[in-house]
Amino acid sequence: MKKTSISYDPGGWIIRETGYTPDDTVSIGSNFMVGNGYLGYRGTPLEWGREQYAACVVTDTYDMADGKWRELCTVPNALSGRLVIDGAALEAAGADTVFGLDLAEGRFFRTQETAALTVAEELVADQVDLHLVARRVVLTAVRPASITLQAGIDSDIWSLNGNHFSRQQWAVEALPQADHASGLLRCDLQTGESRIDISVGHAARILLNGQPVTNESVDITNESWHGIGQDFSLAAGDRLELELYMAVYSSEDGIDPVAGVRTSIQRAVSSGWSQLMHESRERWQQFWEATDIRIEGDHEAQVTTRFNIYHNVIAAPRHSDRLPIGARGLSCQAYQGAAFWDQEIFNMPMFLYTDPGVARNILAYRYHTLPGARRKAQRLGYRGAFYAWISGKTGDELCPDYFFVDVLTGRRIRNHFNDWQIHISPDIAYAIWEYLEATGDWEFVEQMGAEVLFEIARFCFSHLYFKKDKDRYETIRLLGPDEYHENVDNNAFTNYQIQFACRAAVAVYERLQRDNPDRLQEIVRQIGLEPAETDDWRDVVDRIYLPQPTLAGQLIEQFDGYFQLEDVFPQEVAARLKDPGEYWGWPNGVAVATQVLKQADVIQLFVQHDAFPIEVQKANYEYYAPRTQHGSSLSPSSYAIIAARVHNRQQAYDFFMKSNTVDLYNTNKAVSGGTFIGGIHTAACGASWKVLFNGFVGFEIENSCMRFRPRLPDQWKSITVPFVFRGQPYRVTVTAGDVLLEFGGDPQHITDLPKVLIGDTEYTMQESLRVPFASGGKDD
Amino acid sequence: MKKTSISYDPGGWIIRETGYTPDDTVSIGSNFMVGNGYLGYRGTPLEWGREQYAACVVTDTYDMADGKWRELCTVPNALSGRLVIDGAALEAAGADTVFGLDLAEGRFFRTQETAALTVAEELVADQVDLHLVARRVVLTAVRPASITLQAGIDSDIWSLNGNHFSRQQWAVEALPQADHASGLLRCDLQTGESRIDISVGHAARILLNGQPVTNESVDITNESWHGIGQDFSLAAGDRLELELYMAVYSSEDGIDPVAGVRTSIQRAVSSGWSQLMHESRERWQQFWEATDIRIEGDHEAQVTTRFNIYHNVIAAPRHSDRLPIGARGLSCQAYQGAAFWDQEIFNMPMFLYTDPGVARNILAYRYHTLPGARRKAQRLGYRGAFYAWISGKTGDELCPDYFFVDVLTGRRIRNHFNDWQIHISPDIAYAIWEYLEATGDWEFVEQMGAEVLFEIARFCFSHLYFKKDKDRYETIRLLGPDEYHENVDNNAFTNYQIQFACRAAVAVYERLQRDNPDRLQEIVRQIGLEPAETDDWRDVVDRIYLPQPTLAGQLIEQFDGYFQLEDVFPQEVAARLKDPGEYWGWPNGVAVATQVLKQADVIQLFVQHDAFPIEVQKANYEYYAPRTQHGSSLSPSSYAIIAARVHNRQQAYDFFMKSNTVDLYNTNKAVSGGTFIGGIHTAACGASWKVLFNGFVGFEIENSCMRFRPRLPDQWKSITVPFVFRGQPYRVTVTAGDVLLEFGGDPQHITDLPKVLIGDTEYTMQESLRVPFASGGKDD
Repeated sequence: MKKTSISYDPGGWIIRETGYTPDDTVSIGSNFMVGNGYLGYRGTPLEWGREQYAACVVTDTYDMADGKWRELCTVPNALSGRLVIDGAALEAAGADTVFGLDLAEGRFFRTQETAALTVAEELVADQVDLHLVARRVVLTAVRPASITLQAGIDSDIWSLNGNHFSRQQWAVEALPQADHASGLLRCDLQTGESRIDISVGHAARILLNGQPVTNESVDITNESWHGIGQDFSLAAGDRLELELYMAVYSSEDGIDPVAGVRTSIQRAVSSGWSQLMHESRERWQQFWEATDIRIEGDHEAQVTTRFNIYHNVIAAPRHSDRLPIGARGLSCQAYQGAAFWDQEIFNMPMFLYTDPGVARNILAYRYHTLPGARRKAQRLGYRGAFYAWISGKTGDELCPDYFFVDVLTGRRIRNHFNDWQIHISPDIAYAIWEYLEATGDWEFVEQMGAEVLFEIARFCFSHLYFKKDKDRYETIRLLGPDEYHENVDNNAFTNYQIQFACRAAVAVYERLQRDNPDRLQEIVRQIGLEPAETDDWRDVVDRIYLPQPTLAGQLIEQFDGYFQLEDVFPQEVAARLKDPGEYWGWPNGVAVATQVLKQADVIQLFVQHDAFPIEVQKANYEYYAPRTQHGSSLSPSSYAIIAARVHNRQQAYDFFMKSNTVDLYNTNKAVSGGTFIGGIHTAACGASWKVLFNGFVGFEIENSCMRFRPRLPDQWKSITVPFVFRGQPYRVTVTAGDVLLEFGGDPQHITDLPKVLIGDTEYTMQESLRVPFASGGKDD
Repeated sequence: MKKTSISYDPGGWIIRETGYTPDDTVSIGSNFMVGNGYLGYRGTPLEWGREQYAACVVTDTYDMADGKWRELCTVPNALSGRLVIDGAALEAAGADTVFGLDLAEGRFFRTQETAALTVAEELVADQVDLHLVARRVVLTAVRPASITLQAGIDSDIWSLNGNHFSRQQWAVEALPQADHASGLLRCDLQTGESRIDISVGHAARILLNGQPVTNESVDITNESWHGIGQDFSLAAGDRLELELYMAVYSSEDGIDPVAGVRTSIQRAVSSGWSQLMHESRERWQQFWEATDIRIEGDHEAQVTTRFNIYHNVIAAPRHSDRLPIGARGLSCQAYQGAAFWDQEIFNMPMFLYTDPGVARNILAYRYHTLPGARRKAQRLGYRGAFYAWISGKTGDELCPDYFFVDVLTGRRIRNHFNDWQIHISPDIAYAIWEYLEATGDWEFVEQMGAEVLFEIARFCFSHLYFKKDKDRYETIRLLGPDEYHENVDNNAFTNYQIQFACRAAVAVYERLQRDNPDRLQEIVRQIGLEPAETDDWRDVVDRIYLPQPTLAGQLIEQFDGYFQLEDVFPQEVAARLKDPGEYWGWPNGVAVATQVLKQADVIQLFVQHDAFPIEVQKANYEYYAPRTQHGSSLSPSSYAIIAARVHNRQQAYDFFMKSNTVDLYNTNKAVSGGTFIGGIHTAACGASWKVLFNGFVGFEIENSCMRFRPRLPDQWKSITVPFVFRGQPYRVTVTAGDVLLEFGGDPQHITDLPKVLIGDTEYTMQESLRVPFASGGKDD
């Protein structure tokens, strides 16, 4: 499973990859990227350009260039350059090049040795000034060598779906108080469709043996590349440092982009590399203190877990409550830099329990995008809020009607992600309730959450059909998370989620009625809510059809008629492909008429609703697992959680590691049929955290109390997770024999804390509560 | 339009086709076939065999040979033979051969002249003994010639989907009292799946110059062909006659097939050709007296109309109330010899108004197949009667899940004719109500119709979804008659039909309550009907969603969202085909995402419910006509009726002639992608009658009275249609200036007859009522 070219340092923070081949180009850039939630800069060395998928992706720059895909822009690369050694340009990547990522400080690096010198390169996305990315290249001569440095802005950039810029202007200006730095080179652009102004700035500083070199640069310009070039003759032992600073702003940031670029670049060149690194590193330390999960006894699991936590955090626009977490984060433009249900269900939990303010931002984003969700509902004939399957800045649907192409016929396929995958709305309601449960932040619900919940319940009611002959509500023509089966009825996962959403809306309505009738009246007026509507929601709670364990008394049918489909396994179905690039799903893919699943909705149902007897969960797990193809990177993590719950620790571990390494051991193709589908599977990153906390540590909230039912893989001596619950910090450590729950808050509050359940036993919280509990032992 | 190789005799009864090429093989056999509702024998000469699609198709012999298609059997051809002239076998078909059909007496013929002799061949399906087919070949020598006659049974037969016979035995026996005839040669068979015994018998009689020739035959046998051979030396002027008799019985006929064959053959050889012809011809005369439509001034329309009437009647198993009318009648096995909605909506009207007992049989068939319709409903999760889309003997669904194959991928297509095309059930309810209206036969409704109506209403209710937010019933996931758009909601045609069906069920229930409560209680007990169910039906009548003219105040949307589909015309869509054999519909055919229709459901809605203002009908006609591809042979006739109604007489005429000649000028391919799709479009035949009566004569029933609103094409001087209404015979003649309605019943009843509406004026019926009415004039 593990890629032999990848190694980890003993401390568990640094990942190195050697033995570069061109096939690794995409995954190195994605895996070793740097970012800060405002921008993502792919883990690419100085010399790489569009052919090597070098890119800086910037939040909040949605634009459509091809009439189909509205996506984030990649901006001109202001950390571009070349090294010419003794007249020959250095190739950044060779079999001896080491690429890597220091997770502790969010630092990409590359080292290389040539006959003449050693190259040590670093790249960081600043965590203080989110508009800044900095690169340093240090050359140490091992023999005399003549060197030419080139550095500047490359505007010939990789962009997935067309050129986004209708206007592009270059400018150079001096930098005051910028001792020995180059001037500020700027590229000012405007997007063609959305008319967003973007400014990208570049500055360079060069030091020879620690002494700044007066910049006697010569502008090198061609149509798309502008920058400086400077020659050096190095003696053996000479050390030449090149510091590059890139700043990027858009007109969506609320300030003039050009002014912003000036400020950021000015600060950067004034501070210099070491000072910037120091400040940024401090932020990373704070982050890891709150978020790092320790796994004793399994180095690979330890490092890959940190890798996933790292990518989940740099993907999230934590600075804003109006921006989505992209399905590929900021690692590339794939999936349009937009949010799916992934955001609430897979990305959010880590923030919810480590940095709840970010979870609040995520949910506030859904509040701010209510108008888009309302527009979608209305356009499709519904009421309330039907959230976009692919949601950008405004919440309007970004998912085009025709997503895939049938590779066998060349005909486009009308995928129904955008109109039939309705669970997105109740999923958001679920997340709001989960947020309230975990944080107790009723004020958020009053301000924002309630309106979202009401509009979601309203949407659900307007979508539901009532079968008078069966006296129940049904859902018709759905696509569940298992996207291989479109046009199904009563998808179990969706129906339970709808019931949950309606129940949450009723509960919040009733609490508002009691606690804050004025605010309720405000919302009621705002959205024209009729009192009878809440009766409708109550009626849905009572009478929506909830598929029960029926087959053999235990199996829940994923949707009406699923058990009548051809019962084959994924391998057999795969053998029916006439072309490996075929889409397996709608309308006529190989999985459609079979029980083969992309991901198991019934398993997902259990993940979100631990409301079924464990034997039922176990029976369904055993039925659905062999029928699941895991065509979604979200699938293994949910299986891992349920495997742990039904006490199948080895399979839980295997599923977890599959999820944990989906990107790092990148076995999926990054480019398929000419379409780039690479980049970081952000939701799988978030899901890893969730498996550890909800699966192995076995955390859940029961009647507003914490409950732990840990299952520890044999490979692990212990796992330690810091977390926040209802505003108080905790740390839980699970070993095979006991559970240690430590309270990190003010000891005075301990007596106010609710009871804690460990297994089935209730405990009173203490500063340090250690309870014997067998979380290992024999698998069932 | 007209095929130049086809000509009509001046009397208007005989069709001749010359200039044979092999491409005509299928259409000659179909168009010139003979039949009697029990069997169909294709219009093929003595010499043709399986390669020329010679076949005798027999009702009530359903069998499945290939695991997919249950179809009627073709039986061994007992009218097979050869003519050898001066040592060379005669080719039956050449450029000089004349093939033809005498509609007046249901007689196929072929004439041919060789250097040595003339050949005059005739073929009839007996109208007295339905098990009998007879062929006569008369050779007249123009110079001395040596002739070998061979005649017998060919068991190497054409069968569409596999060999149906698991057992086959040959037998020869003497025929008592059969002067100069051959013995009886029999082939006894059993079907492999359905275990039906079938017996086919053959006898021959030869006359030389009018004198029976003592049969000194020699058996010629090979594996699949058994028969006699006899040599003759003819002098110039000699006339040699070969009479062949074929009888066929199956164990489904209620008598021993072998005994049946003996009786029929015995009668045939005893009677001889002339007597048989005489008796059969009398039946044809009676038929034409009741059914013939006279069109003055348009010979082509006259003959082709008779051609369609002929094929409608020979396709119908008039002798039975337990057998369906096949979509291709008995012309071949295509469409499995089974009934579609065509039967009630297109075939039945002609019988309803000319021979109501046959209409009763058709509906009784639906009563007898209730168990199959109940099984289908139950299997799919509904109650009541969901009639089979393709209905054979038992009423169980014969339509396989996978009907077509995607020619671009080779993948089979899951067509949803069988589970989503629900209008079949309310269509049958519609026909029952129409039957009651036209005949007044309440006794049929009491005995059979009521139970069918109740079970259909029950099915409709169990299929309907109620939208609480809209306070209405909706239909979800349908396929309307326009089969290019599957998975649609609220297909307007279907919703109106469901309302009609529920209203009819309620009306019949209430009348039974009043007039025959005992019988009602019997039915109620029989089918376990709850009193509340009729309230459900009333609720459906009141609250089913009935799409109204909305777009521009006039257009009715065929189904939810139709007007949002790409608005292109069929020609443009056809240009998108990558293969001419592609299916245009579900799931990914070229028409699916467009407004291009196979046939227009809104037009069909008007045909069956003249309940919309004429401007609305006109606007919809003009909108939908250019968007209709007429991929169904049922489409032009419905357009013709509405074109006439909206006073577009020229287009009505064009649509009518298109429908009237779909088979005779056969432009459709008979074999496509290796699959035989030829044969007679039986429903289009019935539809021609319907266009004439309901379109051009403009007949409809309004408040239990006859109403006429004629529209006469400019080409026609007059049209005369005999018909029966409420048990009384009438004849209507329309000219450009007046309408003549003649009463053919007992004049004493005239005072009891209801009023008649001609145009908008009410008249009292007289023996001969002539009313000025401008049915020609300027088209709108």
